[in-house]
Amino acid sequence: MNDAIDFDRYDRIRPIRWTGQALELLDQRKLPFVVEYVTCADSDEVAAAIHALTVRGAPAIGIAAAWGAVLAARAVEAADGAQALAAIEPALQRLNAARPTAVNLAWALARMRRALAGVGADWRAVLEREAQAIADEDLAANRRMGALGAALIEPGRGVLTHCNTGSLATAGFGTALGVIRAGVAQGRIERVFAGETRPWLQGARLTVWELEQDGIAPTLIADSAAAHLMKTGQVGWVIVGADRICANGDTANKIGTYQLAIAARHHGVKFMVVAPSSTVDMDTASGDLIEIEERDPAELFAVGGARTAAERVGAWNPVFDVTPHELIDAIVTERGVIERPDAAAMRAAFSGQ
Amino acid sequence: MNDAIDFDRYDRIRPIRWTGQALELLDQRKLPFVVEYVTCADSDEVAAAIHALTVRGAPAIGIAAAWGAVLAARAVEAADGAQALAAIEPALQRLNAARPTAVNLAWALARMRRALAGVGADWRAVLEREAQAIADEDLAANRRMGALGAALIEPGRGVLTHCNTGSLATAGFGTALGVIRAGVAQGRIERVFAGETRPWLQGARLTVWELEQDGIAPTLIADSAAAHLMKTGQVGWVIVGADRICANGDTANKIGTYQLAIAARHHGVKFMVVAPSSTVDMDTASGDLIEIEERDPAELFAVGGARTAAERVGAWNPVFDVTPHELIDAIVTERGVIERPDAAAMRAAFSGQ
Repeated sequence: MNDAIDFDRYDRIRPIRWTGQALELLDQRKLPFVVEYVTCADSDEVAAAIHALTVRGAPAIGIAAAWGAVLAARAVEAADGAQALAAIEPALQRLNAARPTAVNLAWALARMRRALAGVGADWRAVLEREAQAIADEDLAANRRMGALGAALIEPGRGVLTHCNTGSLATAGFGTALGVIRAGVAQGRIERVFAGETRPWLQGARLTVWELEQDGIAPTLIADSAAAHLMKTGQVGWVIVGADRICANGDTANKIGTYQLAIAARHHGVKFMVVAPSSTVDMDTASGDLIEIEERDPAELFAVGGARTAAERVGAWNPVFDVTPHELIDAIVTERGVIERPDAAAMRAAFSGQ
Repeated sequence: MNDAIDFDRYDRIRPIRWTGQALELLDQRKLPFVVEYVTCADSDEVAAAIHALTVRGAPAIGIAAAWGAVLAARAVEAADGAQALAAIEPALQRLNAARPTAVNLAWALARMRRALAGVGADWRAVLEREAQAIADEDLAANRRMGALGAALIEPGRGVLTHCNTGSLATAGFGTALGVIRAGVAQGRIERVFAGETRPWLQGARLTVWELEQDGIAPTLIADSAAAHLMKTGQVGWVIVGADRICANGDTANKIGTYQLAIAARHHGVKFMVVAPSSTVDMDTASGDLIEIEERDPAELFAVGGARTAAERVGAWNPVFDVTPHELIDAIVTERGVIERPDAAAMRAAFSGQ
């Protein structure tokens, strides 16, 4: 085992490209069957792409929205930052409304707003630098989390992940998948299991694809095979991302995460949440207060054009759930590791956030 | 609430129809998009239909095989039952080999063989009566289990089921879905949730369809939304079938059942297993001794012709799992209810089986 991590070796995909004139988004609805970038020429195209899941993953959404703000600025004239902010505010609000649950979206837009405060005639350059900084800091945070999280993993077993928290969901490297990349690079992780993640199949379509691209051979399982997998003893950790982490450590993440956390505790498998500190929402006391996005039931009726159920039946399609902090063994952010998170530990780490 | 059950009202589908000349099987591979019966004119066509999953569900497979034996008899001449058995034995063995793990298949064929013992010139009529008896007894057992299981359900909440255990899987009415039909008929069940049941989607394709046909509006959920559903308090019972029940009450069933049982216990939701006594295997002491069938990983790569993952990735596709008896609140067979099953309770109910 070598704790040095060759960060580039296992991280070749970039879902968001800024050309200087437009934003190019790797169309995640079409992966892995079509690898195609969509060009967004204005902020409303970015908002539509966020809403349509062309780009997804909380950090990636935040970064895309930041570039959306830069594009919004292209359409306005302003003498300074304050005028610019007033002019682009409607566009920022449309970007903010594109997805309801992920806190990174609002966080990135708030940061773009703050960047304009007190800025003079060079406000366009400031705004663009801020968007680039959000992207660069995300990649750096992911690499830092990768090292921190991997250090928790005793060598010799497999890990299970859910949804997609990888390069595709971030500026690069990934959050939970970054820990897994780092753990593989260090020889700590024997095998990577990925749940399909119905209904959108982010695990089957995205995680499996991006790990394959990077030379890490994953093993795909049906979401409902996870507990049986844990019973076989092949998995030491479940490692997932987060869409929002509350002040007591309760964590909102992709539907199915909570079910994995319950099964993990039942089997003595450890449970790690990996997310940048921008995901931490100290203003929300506990997970009960998080609004859970429910999407169109039709997502359960078809896969890639093939129907999976009779049409117009009833369905319930919540796309996130909340894992209570009691079921979490470690929360990893770029600031450090919080083991056995609770309100006191979170306050110690994030007070003032 | 009225405890009388109008059995016919909520049970209109018959997956197996004997015309007197041929066997008609509702093609479950095409449901719910095409409702079409396939006609089997000889026993080898029945064997092929069982192998191809045109008919599925352990009780339904046994019944289809019994009618297959009747069709095999059409092709032979014999003076009595013993001669007839010798003549059709090769056909019976081909039927038996159609699915490797279906216990009911071997059970039904053994019963058909026994029916011929000591029978004279009327052996054809005896054989046909036996096949009809197997079907009729299955329907009666399901109705009995429906009444027994429904009686356990406190009115006012919903239930969650997994896979398909309904009319389609049996002679009619169903096992776990029979309990749900009875509970709906009695006004005990407010709402029926059905998990998709990846990778074959028996829940999405079959359970949802057959409940809709019977005027029971189900609510489809992703398998991984079950724990979140339980947390909302909408579900009082998880009700599932079984492929095998061991001597200590451990139960093998469709992959995902174990995960539901763990989540149910975590939330104080009760867990019911419903299966005919022919599913009880007192020769297998515990679930650890059950070999879990693993099927082709390719089942995780496509749905109805639409790809769900990149091809040739690694995958693990166990199709059953084992729920330990500690997580089961009640096992319901046509003989009665076993609450909090363990080896002693099972022995008391099934000794000598």
